[in-house]
Amino acid sequence: MRTLLLTPGPLSTSEATRAALGRDWGSREPAFIALTSRVRVRLCGLAGGTPGHETVLLAGSGTTAVEAAIGSLVPRDGRLLVLVNGAYGQRMVTIAERIGRDVEALRWAETEPVAAAQVAARLRDDRRITDVAVVHCETTTGLLNPLEAIAGVVEAAGRRLLVDAMSSFGALPLDLARLRASAVMASANKCLEGVPGVAFVIAERTHLRNSRGCSPSLTLDLEAQWRGFEANGQWRFTPPVQVLAALDAALDQLDAEGGPPARLARYRTNQAALVHGMRALGFETLLPDALQAPIIVTFTEPQGRFDFASFYEALAGRGIVIYPGKLTERPSFRIGCIGAIDEQDIARAVASVAWVRKG
Amino acid sequence: MRTLLLTPGPLSTSEATRAALGRDWGSREPAFIALTSRVRVRLCGLAGGTPGHETVLLAGSGTTAVEAAIGSLVPRDGRLLVLVNGAYGQRMVTIAERIGRDVEALRWAETEPVAAAQVAARLRDDRRITDVAVVHCETTTGLLNPLEAIAGVVEAAGRRLLVDAMSSFGALPLDLARLRASAVMASANKCLEGVPGVAFVIAERTHLRNSRGCSPSLTLDLEAQWRGFEANGQWRFTPPVQVLAALDAALDQLDAEGGPPARLARYRTNQAALVHGMRALGFETLLPDALQAPIIVTFTEPQGRFDFASFYEALAGRGIVIYPGKLTERPSFRIGCIGAIDEQDIARAVASVAWVRKG
Repeated sequence: MRTLLLTPGPLSTSEATRAALGRDWGSREPAFIALTSRVRVRLCGLAGGTPGHETVLLAGSGTTAVEAAIGSLVPRDGRLLVLVNGAYGQRMVTIAERIGRDVEALRWAETEPVAAAQVAARLRDDRRITDVAVVHCETTTGLLNPLEAIAGVVEAAGRRLLVDAMSSFGALPLDLARLRASAVMASANKCLEGVPGVAFVIAERTHLRNSRGCSPSLTLDLEAQWRGFEANGQWRFTPPVQVLAALDAALDQLDAEGGPPARLARYRTNQAALVHGMRALGFETLLPDALQAPIIVTFTEPQGRFDFASFYEALAGRGIVIYPGKLTERPSFRIGCIGAIDEQDIARAVASVAWVRKG
Repeated sequence: MRTLLLTPGPLSTSEATRAALGRDWGSREPAFIALTSRVRVRLCGLAGGTPGHETVLLAGSGTTAVEAAIGSLVPRDGRLLVLVNGAYGQRMVTIAERIGRDVEALRWAETEPVAAAQVAARLRDDRRITDVAVVHCETTTGLLNPLEAIAGVVEAAGRRLLVDAMSSFGALPLDLARLRASAVMASANKCLEGVPGVAFVIAERTHLRNSRGCSPSLTLDLEAQWRGFEANGQWRFTPPVQVLAALDAALDQLDAEGGPPARLARYRTNQAALVHGMRALGFETLLPDALQAPIIVTFTEPQGRFDFASFYEALAGRGIVIYPGKLTERPSFRIGCIGAIDEQDIARAVASVAWVRKG
């Protein structure tokens, strides 16, 4: 029976996506140059496709794209405010500190969404802040931050916004024609349902062009990477050719499904089936439904006798791979709703949980 | 007919390697943790397998590994001497400058090997130099640098050596039990015949352990990446799971072939057939045979009417993908000898060149 990866990625992909991995590509061949160009345009299109934005592809994990964006787009004499309510917000603070950018954090509990009014107040109080960074869907918990409200106050205050859209891109709404962001960072292997190894930043062209020499890294320099694509359509350094081809195939399937709204609807159905089924088995979600994104759901460990390691292994033995918790304060675990899976798969997962709990 | 990628990579891979791309892996699953551990051990084994070295895997291109090694292993108050006789040596200078390491270059012409005696003299003259970096096989030209002699003078002078073994690792001899190097950087998609997307650094454990906090980057921090592997066998950030599985399959095939000596013998046969065939057609190699590694061969453009773009396209139309030149001084092109190709494939390539030149 097919193994289901109910995780925040790498996740279950379709056969068609994996089939696209099966050929060789010369990285400087016209066919690969066309593939690169097509993927760049398609990703930008998914974010609203404004003519003022550019997609910059990078080899690596999503964190590679986040580090590249902070290093390349927050000016060396700038100051970054990171809105933190989970591990991925905290990671942006760590990155900024490590690469030597002036940074401060505004923090909320892991179960609380970022409050736009508090962001507005902080921006009023600290005129040195040039850039604000936020995680759209905090994969730590599965919490959805109110991106439109945050973008509104950041734009009103005349600052730039960087959005870590890692686990939301391709499913949750994100329209750069309506919502001002200087950069959106995401990767191939979450809601886009590609395989891991490629990440990307969709950046405002004007700001990107003005950021020459800003990056403290050669390989993570977004402006130079973009200039390379513009010059001859090629990657500066050897690209993961098969992974990019799989992403292109995955984007075909996203189109065929009906785009992000249809994908979101499938994930919502998955999430509803998961939460309903797990609650019926006595599990509780960490978050109230109103804060929960249909990406990954955190369940608190039940009272009484419960050992996560044996629970995980028993499920894995039935082909159901779940994910450990990442909360700082209470024992929990996570189950993903994303990937090439549907309501029947979730029903199978819930049935396995029931079987394991009964055993 | 099968397209042959006669390039420095991504190159032609075997069906078995590409077949290994075809499944999903959870990155925190025991099976993937075992895969990661196995690949780390196998790569270290290929470099002589001394107990004092550790393999640190990274997602990305070979240049990712080079930047990670320079940033993580050359101390912040150190000074790096780069031995430059081609574009990849120069790239290490650029990386060191960009990340803010003190660096100087010792230069030779692109057609001259690094001279160990000159390195020894420079190390005598400049006591501030802590680390030396060299490219084993300069892919710019295909020139093989005298690694053992260089390592000898660097060790005698009590400095550390970083070796960019990108296009030699897995074929040309490299034995860390005999040759002292603090780091060897390479990637999956050259002589190992994997697909691109994973690179690695084989580093001296003692120095790696002492390098905590040295890296100016979070994602390229080798010491932290290594600590992550040691802690729980997992990658710190989402790994390219399929690419790593393909590398493991490629390593199986390297073993089955007879290891690096057998692979080197095949490449030498490819190179001999290529050079013999091309010379018979009137082409000249840039380098004398004694300096030429059996990895990639630079041919100077012939006198008279020759247009590389149409030559390239005509060959590509027959399924033979060659590579542009990278010399700073004279028009040239390159043809690779590496990948899952043999003498018959080279014969086909030479026959295609003959056909194109006659047309």
